[in-house]
Amino acid sequence: MAICVVARRLHFNAAHRLHNPARSAEWNQTTFGPCNNPNYHGHNYELDVLVEGEIDPETGYVLDVGLLKGVVEASVLSVLDHKNLNLDVPWFRDRIPSAENIAVFCWEQIAPRLPAGRLTLIRLWETPRNYVEYHGA
Amino acid sequence: MAICVVARRLHFNAAHRLHNPARSAEWNQTTFGPCNNPNYHGHNYELDVLVEGEIDPETGYVLDVGLLKGVVEASVLSVLDHKNLNLDVPWFRDRIPSAENIAVFCWEQIAPRLPAGRLTLIRLWETPRNYVEYHGA
Amino acid sequence: MAICVVARRLHFNAAHRLHNPARSAEWNQTTFGPCNNPNYHGHNYELDVLVEGEIDPETGYVLDVGLLKGVVEASVLSVLDHKNLNLDVPWFRDRIPSAENIAVFCWEQIAPRLPAGRLTLIRLWETPRNYVEYHGA
Amino acid sequence: MAICVVARRLHFNAAHRLHNPARSAEWNQTTFGPCNNPNYHGHNYELDVLVEGEIDPETGYVLDVGLLKGVVEASVLSVLDHKNLNLDVPWFRDRIPSAENIAVFCWEQIAPRLPAGRLTLIRLWETPRNYVEYHGA
Amino acid sequence: MAICVVARRLHFNAAHRLHNPARSAEWNQTTFGPCNNPNYHGHNYELDVLVEGEIDPETGYVLDVGLLKGVVEASVLSVLDHKNLNLDVPWFRDRIPSAENIAVFCWEQIAPRLPAGRLTLIRLWETPRNYVEYHGA
Amino acid sequence: MAICVVARRLHFNAAHRLHNPARSAEWNQTTFGPCNNPNYHGHNYELDVLVEGEIDPETGYVLDVGLLKGVVEASVLSVLDHKNLNLDVPWFRDRIPSAENIAVFCWEQIAPRLPAGRLTLIRLWETPRNYVEYHGA
Repeated sequence: MAICVVARRLHFNAAHRLHNPARSAEWNQTTFGPCNNPNYHGHNYELDVLVEGEIDPETGYVLDVGLLKGVVEASVLSVLDHKNLNLDVPWFRDRIPSAENIAVFCWEQIAPRLPAGRLTLIRLWETPRNYVEYHGA
Repeated sequence: MAICVVARRLHFNAAHRLHNPARSAEWNQTTFGPCNNPNYHGHNYELDVLVEGEIDPETGYVLDVGLLKGVVEASVLSVLDHKNLNLDVPWFRDRIPSAENIAVFCWEQIAPRLPAGRLTLIRLWETPRNYVEYHGA
Repeated sequence: MAICVVARRLHFNAAHRLHNPARSAEWNQTTFGPCNNPNYHGHNYELDVLVEGEIDPETGYVLDVGLLKGVVEASVLSVLDHKNLNLDVPWFRDRIPSAENIAVFCWEQIAPRLPAGRLTLIRLWETPRNYVEYHGA
Repeated sequence: MAICVVARRLHFNAAHRLHNPARSAEWNQTTFGPCNNPNYHGHNYELDVLVEGEIDPETGYVLDVGLLKGVVEASVLSVLDHKNLNLDVPWFRDRIPSAENIAVFCWEQIAPRLPAGRLTLIRLWETPRNYVEYHGA
Repeated sequence: MAICVVARRLHFNAAHRLHNPARSAEWNQTTFGPCNNPNYHGHNYELDVLVEGEIDPETGYVLDVGLLKGVVEASVLSVLDHKNLNLDVPWFRDRIPSAENIAVFCWEQIAPRLPAGRLTLIRLWETPRNYVEYHGA
Repeated sequence: MAICVVARRLHFNAAHRLHNPARSAEWNQTTFGPCNNPNYHGHNYELDVLVEGEIDPETGYVLDVGLLKGVVEASVLSVLDHKNLNLDVPWFRDRIPSAENIAVFCWEQIAPRLPAGRLTLIRLWETPRNYVEYHGA
């Protein structure tokens, strides 16, 4: 059976602040620079979700990307889109909402909810020039 | 003399909230939906600045795009980038920071500071699918 | 009052065939080449809809792009998306579904249904390298 | 010797229909939704072909991308571009022309015809938001 | 009759140097900075050619974009692509090969050779962030 | 500890010529075609640099992309941007400046200078349709 990867790109936008409350204001300013703005700043995020599995000969699909889109919308976009990651999303209460940690969040939300296939990659663009890739723990 | 337009694309990101304090919470929620989130959300903005003028035969330039970039960085990006438009930018104290109004702000900042040529268009992408164009008053 | 343009980019895909039934098979083959394939071929279309109007100081909007998106989905995407333009869309029964004519169709559908502002441009990409722009009759 | 991957992006467009003739009309409609339209729909496809090999010190090339382009045009684009995948391409007579299966087709066509290097990845975008990756059997 | 614009995007790459031989080395260095490198540097150029005309009801076309592509390839790409603009292109012997002047060159080459329609815009990207637009003399 | 990849996209442009001085003019012309132009041609290069490492719980970062950007600017862009690769860059005195070899150069410059993490991939676009990927020796 042929193994293939299907990918869906989705979009959300959010405000955030990079800040470690366990460290001094000076350390935070030096470490995070303008990303430490106490009033927050924000981004458009582009999210690629890649799922690997066998191609089902009945459908030609590894996984219907419409179903994949639905899983991501329900488990990630409904929680992050048009939100303040620091204030509105409990998962980030004790984690810094860096692109790296947002990718880990996406993995944890999506992986257990897939109706078929295995999650293999979360790729998250924070700006058109910065992105991260997470392959799971 | 040949008239030509030169354009520079620049990037900034910011948090904002669409909210009219003169109206009720209900009106704001109905009008702005998730963009009314009291904790803010945010965007990557792509900004195109178009300047028209004669091509100088000495340089082949309408305007050195390096100078144009410098004007936009000093007058717009230094004020908006990594900021909360509602809280950090005085110009938006009594204006709603919609894409339309941000474009007007960019025009007002850039037009009087150009070393050559005439500003003809501000094009501002708020997301990869939404943008505005402002040709001046 | 400041006049501004708001734009929304939307996506649809469709099959079509360029063929003029009033002309010979030979003329059609010479004129349209592989686009005359009797079994159809297809495209992803990217559609930009630009609407001009005054910025409402109450909202900062010319027109809520969510409303604009809704108008385009109801009047254009519901008719064209995942369709065969020649067979499924009555408007093309006696018109060739070229990008030019699809743009005219979009204008005719969208212009009378806008809740605010004036339609100023339909820009339609048929491929990443070919597009058309229609400013109305 | 340094091992490197060279990649070429190519474009084609086609009509297709997702339909399994061994199943009922109802099953097909439920499974494939608008992609089951009996009159077909279509897409622009972007195809990335990645080939791995040693860098030849005589040329600095793993493989001349002009040659790679020629192989893909002769073995894939000439068969799929401006075609109806269901009706015009024999390989799909008993396979559903999903993005997954088109990627497998591309691999089977290109892999045995490479003048140098080893095919390592076919990446195929069906829309700007959906793509598949196939690494071979 | 409906007036529409058809556009084709084309690609070329070239080396160039911004240098005015009538001025001092110091002036050139100050004016052009790294673009004055005596050994040249280079760019990928993306060129949009927009042509306006009536939609022909026989074809649905303003102008077959295949013909438009052919005109641009014969009159512009064959002269500029993979060339050194300063050394290989006579038109630039007494003009500085800035993006502005390259756009004027494209206009002069293409406008008189169009089989139908009127050239309305040359848009030329010199980098993904810098472009020029030329509407003719 | 979660392992993640952070990536930064950077831009430079340069002139180059593909030419092997140990071979005949005829061989070079046949092998490299228009890329053998003795007067050089040029490109905009887009460079993706991917670095893998553990997410630091103190910062949420694998590596501050601002630091990564600084390393690439100091070790690669300052050497290649707005340069003639054949004439201005000693590393290419005895190597052909193909995309493959430029990627190897980037790896050799960046890998030993990273303040944290491990370089895992250099991806280099020479044109919007041609790119290479180098994973190290």
